[in-house]
Amino acid sequence: MQRQIKKWMSEHVDMGTKLLQRLVQERSIRGHEYNAQAVMIEKCRELGLELDIWDLNRKELEHHAFFRCDRDSFEGNPNICAVWKGKGGGRSIILNGHIDVVPEGDEKDWRNDPYSGMIKDGKLYGRGSTDMKGGSVSLLLAIQALKELDVTLRGDVIFQSVIEEESGGAGTLAALLRGYKADGAIIPEPTNMKMFIKQQGSMWFRITIKGKSAHGGTRYEGVNAIEKSLNVISALQNLETIRNDRINDPLFKDIPIPIPINIGKINSGSWPSSVPDTAIIEGRMGVAPSESMEAAEKEMEECLASIINEDEWLLAHPPKLEWFGGRWQPGDLDINHPFLDCMENAYSNIYGVKPVIEASPWGTDGGILSKGGDIPVVVFGPGTTEAAHEANEFIELKKVFEAAEVIALAIWQWCK
Amino acid sequence: MQRQIKKWMSEHVDMGTKLLQRLVQERSIRGHEYNAQAVMIEKCRELGLELDIWDLNRKELEHHAFFRCDRDSFEGNPNICAVWKGKGGGRSIILNGHIDVVPEGDEKDWRNDPYSGMIKDGKLYGRGSTDMKGGSVSLLLAIQALKELDVTLRGDVIFQSVIEEESGGAGTLAALLRGYKADGAIIPEPTNMKMFIKQQGSMWFRITIKGKSAHGGTRYEGVNAIEKSLNVISALQNLETIRNDRINDPLFKDIPIPIPINIGKINSGSWPSSVPDTAIIEGRMGVAPSESMEAAEKEMEECLASIINEDEWLLAHPPKLEWFGGRWQPGDLDINHPFLDCMENAYSNIYGVKPVIEASPWGTDGGILSKGGDIPVVVFGPGTTEAAHEANEFIELKKVFEAAEVIALAIWQWCK
Repeated sequence: MQRQIKKWMSEHVDMGTKLLQRLVQERSIRGHEYNAQAVMIEKCRELGLELDIWDLNRKELEHHAFFRCDRDSFEGNPNICAVWKGKGGGRSIILNGHIDVVPEGDEKDWRNDPYSGMIKDGKLYGRGSTDMKGGSVSLLLAIQALKELDVTLRGDVIFQSVIEEESGGAGTLAALLRGYKADGAIIPEPTNMKMFIKQQGSMWFRITIKGKSAHGGTRYEGVNAIEKSLNVISALQNLETIRNDRINDPLFKDIPIPIPINIGKINSGSWPSSVPDTAIIEGRMGVAPSESMEAAEKEMEECLASIINEDEWLLAHPPKLEWFGGRWQPGDLDINHPFLDCMENAYSNIYGVKPVIEASPWGTDGGILSKGGDIPVVVFGPGTTEAAHEANEFIELKKVFEAAEVIALAIWQWCK
Repeated sequence: MQRQIKKWMSEHVDMGTKLLQRLVQERSIRGHEYNAQAVMIEKCRELGLELDIWDLNRKELEHHAFFRCDRDSFEGNPNICAVWKGKGGGRSIILNGHIDVVPEGDEKDWRNDPYSGMIKDGKLYGRGSTDMKGGSVSLLLAIQALKELDVTLRGDVIFQSVIEEESGGAGTLAALLRGYKADGAIIPEPTNMKMFIKQQGSMWFRITIKGKSAHGGTRYEGVNAIEKSLNVISALQNLETIRNDRINDPLFKDIPIPIPINIGKINSGSWPSSVPDTAIIEGRMGVAPSESMEAAEKEMEECLASIINEDEWLLAHPPKLEWFGGRWQPGDLDINHPFLDCMENAYSNIYGVKPVIEASPWGTDGGILSKGGDIPVVVFGPGTTEAAHEANEFIELKKVFEAAEVIALAIWQWCK
């Protein structure tokens, strides 16, 4: 089977490359996912999969604790699930990729059109090539290879091309709530062919700190919100240390800060010679794989509560903490889980060595599948995080096909 | 003379109040000074003063070291000088007031229309009432009283109604460069009837601190510009202490921080889960009366240069310091200057006690007259700084007339 898969891949390099090129050339930033999804739909039809195409319905999703999304309309930018039905009695698998890409940023930073799909030295360039249209193509190649090799599976193979991953995972949540569950899931985010079984979750926070306005020439008559926010920043830095000191999972041993607290933004003041009366800090709090979002929230709330006792002004004007915007559940799979064994075997059979198993420093939609659907998730894919979200994003084409080989073999072993 | 002046004032309360009301009702924020200046022009004509009305010319001013102004056009919003020519051989005096007011801010914070000119319990309300149309009316009342009392003066009396004080003093600079000089100057800013002979100067600064962008989940791969800006803020706080520890002028003894460094703004970051790569701090640096702007600039430059040696990143990416926007020269008059004697005498004659002599925590156009024209300046006027620039700004009308009495007597004593 492994040899047949390898042969099939080598014969379909042009086809796979052209498919990835078409996908990258569609600028599927948030709110504009349609054209890229149309390419997906066409491909799934060609593969003879059972297609389920639907627009997310905010009303159906917003009661769910995992739903965090500031998008009003999803109309015309559908989610896709495409099922290769097994003959029954076997283990099922979800193959999940997201179609949304982050904006291209400053076009001046790109050497070429951000959506060129240009190929040079074995690399395909463009926004979304690595994160994660390359990975989605690996999934489709794996399905196509097995189909064309006339494999019969007992378990279902559920391919998903979802929206909204970059903004909190509403697409994957919608697929889960629509009933798509399985005995295992592969998410081919750019892990550089490592296997991530634990993922850092994260959530955004906003802290508003009040001061008291005054003229800068008599600044002692006011209270500077920027100065007060230094207390908050220092408390957050301290909290980060405490939270990370607790983590002793060997999978995190090479990661300097497994669950960072990132101070991403600060805005305060409107006039150089006035004392600013408000400061707003926004950031991202990492959440440990074994931790609940609620526990992490509570810990930051307690941290802020503790500092106000040391400062009379803050005691009278406590900083306001909000959890807003993005929110990614952490992922956590036991290292001895049979689904990981299956993935490892597939990898070892092809490469002759064991894969690197790691914890990932970022969340994926895997957290939603795992915490929300109790589905074992392995994040494994071509491409590198260094290239993701950056100008001149690219993917090494060879890896797309290698990942497809590993995934095809894993599907066969898991669902046969 | 003193009794005659007092009597004249008591007979002209209605006239003076109506004049102030008309001036406050004209919303003379920057770029809209014309209508209020028209009221001034009408009044000066009525007083029989020699009028000089002109639009500032950026080209003529911008070579001057004191010129700091980001306004392109002054057309239609003139400066006014109105001269009461003396018969010769006496000491001259400049009576300087600015017509521009700061914006009213959030109208919701005002109990009434910000430009109502409403009178209640002896207070006249509205933006600019205290800062400083009330003071300008005191000047005009003083001139009118002396004129109507048939006083003949040997020295010239030069009334000025200038624009741009709130934005760096281009109006007073233009009057100075047009040739208006004198042996003394009164600026009736809201000193609450104290005499300010030294004024804190100030200048705005902007510091840009570079970091290195990264994903928040791997924040250790980046350099957080907000964290680096904490070093800068702490250095500025330290510099403020050093600069203020040096000040031993007894006039500053009741001022907690004679020359503050105000951190007025900070902006950094654009995404909660990214490490911000740039932070921009803006603020206002107080300048001591005896100090040159250049010396103060140099001290901050050296301060920033010193911290980079303690931080490898800052050494490779030194913070960039710019001096932009507002800039107010400090003012400095010797406590034994005869012009101050004259002002003190006038005050003592009327109130029976000596005036409070202080250093002011904010700059005025007095710095330009004093450092730029070598003119002795006393800042003395009705109104309080607490009311200036605030919502529900007001002035106690009684003080407008009392200040006018002091000023009329001082003019008579100085110029007779």
